[in-house]
Amino acid sequence: MQAVISIDIGGTSTKLATVDQVSNVLDEMVFATQSYQDEDAYFDRLFLAVSDLIARRKEDQILGIGIGAPCGIPNEGVIYQAANLPFSERVEIVRRFEEVFAIPTFLTKDSYAAALGEGVIGAAQNMSDYIVITLGTGLGSALVANQQLIIGSNGQAGELGHTTSVPGGRACRCGKRGCLETYVSASGIKRTLFELLANSNRESFFRKKSFDEVSAKDIFLQAQNGDELALKAFELTGKLLGEKLADLVALTEPEAIVINGGLASSGTLLIKPVQEHLEKNLLRFYQGKIKILI
Amino acid sequence: MQAVISIDIGGTSTKLATVDQVSNVLDEMVFATQSYQDEDAYFDRLFLAVSDLIARRKEDQILGIGIGAPCGIPNEGVIYQAANLPFSERVEIVRRFEEVFAIPTFLTKDSYAAALGEGVIGAAQNMSDYIVITLGTGLGSALVANQQLIIGSNGQAGELGHTTSVPGGRACRCGKRGCLETYVSASGIKRTLFELLANSNRESFFRKKSFDEVSAKDIFLQAQNGDELALKAFELTGKLLGEKLADLVALTEPEAIVINGGLASSGTLLIKPVQEHLEKNLLRFYQGKIKILI
Repeated sequence: MQAVISIDIGGTSTKLATVDQVSNVLDEMVFATQSYQDEDAYFDRLFLAVSDLIARRKEDQILGIGIGAPCGIPNEGVIYQAANLPFSERVEIVRRFEEVFAIPTFLTKDSYAAALGEGVIGAAQNMSDYIVITLGTGLGSALVANQQLIIGSNGQAGELGHTTSVPGGRACRCGKRGCLETYVSASGIKRTLFELLANSNRESFFRKKSFDEVSAKDIFLQAQNGDELALKAFELTGKLLGEKLADLVALTEPEAIVINGGLASSGTLLIKPVQEHLEKNLLRFYQGKIKILI
Repeated sequence: MQAVISIDIGGTSTKLATVDQVSNVLDEMVFATQSYQDEDAYFDRLFLAVSDLIARRKEDQILGIGIGAPCGIPNEGVIYQAANLPFSERVEIVRRFEEVFAIPTFLTKDSYAAALGEGVIGAAQNMSDYIVITLGTGLGSALVANQQLIIGSNGQAGELGHTTSVPGGRACRCGKRGCLETYVSASGIKRTLFELLANSNRESFFRKKSFDEVSAKDIFLQAQNGDELALKAFELTGKLLGEKLADLVALTEPEAIVINGGLASSGTLLIKPVQEHLEKNLLRFYQGKIKILI
């Protein structure tokens, strides 16, 4: 059988899969991204994982290796200034792979990979104009228009997470203030929850928890239990995302906006306020026409 | 000779030109858009102008008529909900033209026409990714990526003027609040000037002028004379545009942003603060790479 190896390098985990030509996953592997001393130790672990996957399917022909990573620049094969990864400023990842494996290797930004995937086998099949938002530790995005991914003049387009949501607002790891990602992401909703804890007098499960021990998943679980501050945190997160998406619709008028990633699995808790505030802020001629898909 | 007739329908003036195949202007005409009782009276005037242009170049073959108009929807030949024009909600302009003239007629949004023009004979020749901002009575925009205009799923993309600049800010004619156009446009800079008159104690040429008698051109002239409030109005206008353009760069990473229209002729008064606040708000990897062209 012919297959490819897909690699998703995330701030938390690195996920690998062997995939056949009709996108069936034949094999999978995952390891923590952050538990390595340095870049070289990380790559030793990554190459070992790829070797394992290849060895486990000896009968298959591996046609290529595809990598998605934050700050991956498609045409250069380089990961550049990835704040969430334990890497130096410029990592020539495609070159490193091709030195170890005699297999053609391709790199793209993680959000671009997500957008291409949604188009080929996901929620955006047969759409010519759509947007993909990935809600993980950060907020990734990719815009597709005229059936083509917008990668920009240097392969670094699609940074919706670093557009301004609240002027002069929260400090972002990029050095700016008020970036959407500091509000709408797994880390953003936690910051919102702790702001609510500070500003309100309401009882909450989270009064007894430290910042470091709370995860977005905890907030989701407590919101389902009816914790008022957790519910309010989802409401505020959805509001800011909906408002931002209304501006994005005015720029590229997509047929749909696909939201994926961990926080998207919160379902209606997040999506209801997103849809409400999207519609409220759309110009009249876009109203009722933009699909939000999970 | 073979030629086309170009028509630019603006909120203030309607401009017509006969243009040859290498974009030389052979003949021109202009009339005020707003001085007609209703849509039919306006179209009588427009058709008369076109007939005149055709009659004046009897020896030429007119191959087509091209129209740019606010809210012009390219594939439908319809102007839809144009707040600045004395029209009903839906005007089938291409059909109306083809009933009068036996000449193929094409419609696009004014900002799309501007973007195509900048690409073919203007400041963005040979660029694959660029943005055009038109500063007139309102703020028009068009995005080009992968050498293609982004018109969106229904031909209504590119409404940068109606994305939020100041949350909860000035009332916009679109019904929303804080739209960029209410700050950055000929009408926007006048509103800024009058806000400065209200908030400051400084002397100004404009203390003796009514809102209705001041134009953006007056503000430009007084800024050149050193009027401090006029200078401050340009500074604030440029700041908000620069901040918004930084967000736009994060989305599509253009090679250049071309600014045209009346207010753009203010030169460095506007462009200096735009460039300063654009650079200040760019993510590190875009800094120093985005050209602002007039």
